[in-house]
Amino acid sequence: MNAAGIDIGGTNIRAVLTDESGTLLGFRKISTPRTSREIVDAIGGLVAGFASRAAGGCAVSVLGVGCAGALDRGRGSIITSPNIPALAGFPIARALEKKLGIRVFIENDATAAVAGEQWKGNGGRFSNWLMITLGTGIGGGAVINGGIYTGRSGAALEIGHMSIDHGGRRCPCGNTGCLERYASATALVHDTRRRLGNFPGSSLRTRIKGTVLTAQMIYEEARSGDELALQSINELSRWLGIGITNLVNIFNPEAVIFGGGLSKAGRFILPVVRNTVEERALKGLRKGVRFLVTKNEEKTPSLGAAKIALDHSIKGA
Amino acid sequence: MNAAGIDIGGTNIRAVLTDESGTLLGFRKISTPRTSREIVDAIGGLVAGFASRAAGGCAVSVLGVGCAGALDRGRGSIITSPNIPALAGFPIARALEKKLGIRVFIENDATAAVAGEQWKGNGGRFSNWLMITLGTGIGGGAVINGGIYTGRSGAALEIGHMSIDHGGRRCPCGNTGCLERYASATALVHDTRRRLGNFPGSSLRTRIKGTVLTAQMIYEEARSGDELALQSINELSRWLGIGITNLVNIFNPEAVIFGGGLSKAGRFILPVVRNTVEERALKGLRKGVRFLVTKNEEKTPSLGAAKIALDHSIKGA
Repeated sequence: MNAAGIDIGGTNIRAVLTDESGTLLGFRKISTPRTSREIVDAIGGLVAGFASRAAGGCAVSVLGVGCAGALDRGRGSIITSPNIPALAGFPIARALEKKLGIRVFIENDATAAVAGEQWKGNGGRFSNWLMITLGTGIGGGAVINGGIYTGRSGAALEIGHMSIDHGGRRCPCGNTGCLERYASATALVHDTRRRLGNFPGSSLRTRIKGTVLTAQMIYEEARSGDELALQSINELSRWLGIGITNLVNIFNPEAVIFGGGLSKAGRFILPVVRNTVEERALKGLRKGVRFLVTKNEEKTPSLGAAKIALDHSIKGA
Repeated sequence: MNAAGIDIGGTNIRAVLTDESGTLLGFRKISTPRTSREIVDAIGGLVAGFASRAAGGCAVSVLGVGCAGALDRGRGSIITSPNIPALAGFPIARALEKKLGIRVFIENDATAAVAGEQWKGNGGRFSNWLMITLGTGIGGGAVINGGIYTGRSGAALEIGHMSIDHGGRRCPCGNTGCLERYASATALVHDTRRRLGNFPGSSLRTRIKGTVLTAQMIYEEARSGDELALQSINELSRWLGIGITNLVNIFNPEAVIFGGGLSKAGRFILPVVRNTVEERALKGLRKGVRFLVTKNEEKTPSLGAAKIALDHSIKGA
């Protein structure tokens, strides 16, 4: 049985085709369209493309869709989606089932990332570990005694909204001092822009002429040794380390694995996180914790969405 | 089969005798002696007392001991114990087995409290819930999909050392802004003493003449309507609410149950915690969370220690 897995992000939609053993049979990436109808059409096109290319006439049997936001899994609809407002309230699973004629399961994108990392990434060798996705916001997932923990209503591990500074920066969520106000790609861009005036020689000043500053640019300039970029990533990593210290004290995990677009900057981020945890976490808990980057930032979440669909399908759910 | 359960606290040792169904057959409470030898003798005396009184000549078959600190369960020894320094490095299980001639199992006191609350308290009707023990420090426990979560090395849920104020109060653990620096019984006493000067009419000023201020006194004066006591407990509850907000966003639990000595002040603490969570936690996660106080603050941890010993014994571990 082959499954397709989709990860709908605010910027891109990524799609994989896989068999039951997790062998990657196809990968596609397109820009996320604006309307729910265009999104359904685009996903339909991606799946149809896989089906036609699949070897030996193997059709796609089931589809898993990962999406940020609060979901109603039973109804297959997205309740709210901060990054893709067009999908709020939209019964995406039913629309896709109608279009494709196969079963469609939806799942939170962070949970899909954990499932993918556990199946084919760096998570498989641990029983108790955390996944931290660093992107526009900060998401999280936990594997507890070998199973993915989703909480009472499937919304657990909203670690981006853990306050580490009770009187600090306001968050649109209503809380103050939320981790993602300090350590997400959004925060990185914001804080770097704020510092531009102090770094007259920064290569970022020339790069942003006529365009907008992105986390990707900051990462690239950090690689070239730009002081501003390095300082900003360092600052972000310190904040992240404070948040991860809390999670190490709370979960006593074997490993913490970083995913999301910003995990590409892991070579700059991880050493600082490790040092901060070493300074701040309880001795008995920080000892031996592994800090890793996802095996494949681009494909893991959609692979996980496919895995979740396969599992549902095999259980006959 | 009958089991004895012991909870060794910094001030008191509490002991229960129970059968396999959790019927309470006996309860004793004594002051915690100073040396490890005296502690072993005292526990020996408590268990012998139960055995002689047990109906129909039913001897105590197994003993569970709950204790704060880092434990080596395999060896049955306490590695470090912040509140009972005499027990650090002491092989308490072996010493008790030698004295009593029965199997002895040790467990973290917070885990024992969770086991007791799940067995005979308010936790049994939930599958995913948190226990928060408010005492000298703040401890925690989590039930995840019906099982007690203890983490990689049995030290999970050190929520007293979750930082909610990264640049705030220093904690002996090495971190800053730890929740227990703001919301434990220790913090309550400290912050109340600091405010005494602003409340010349407070009944606490007369009560502490010639003695030391305790959390119990503050609770009692709050019940009598003392403004200082009420303000201090209110402040503590706000801090606690900020910490619990993080835990609600992280665990997406059905319920949060408060234990420990300070949970006696639940009527003052819980409404403020509930309001703070309502203001700060994510909408999808705060909805429907139950906030409860332990069914029996005095007996639940030792009952849980007995339950853990029974389970080990029945499994033949």
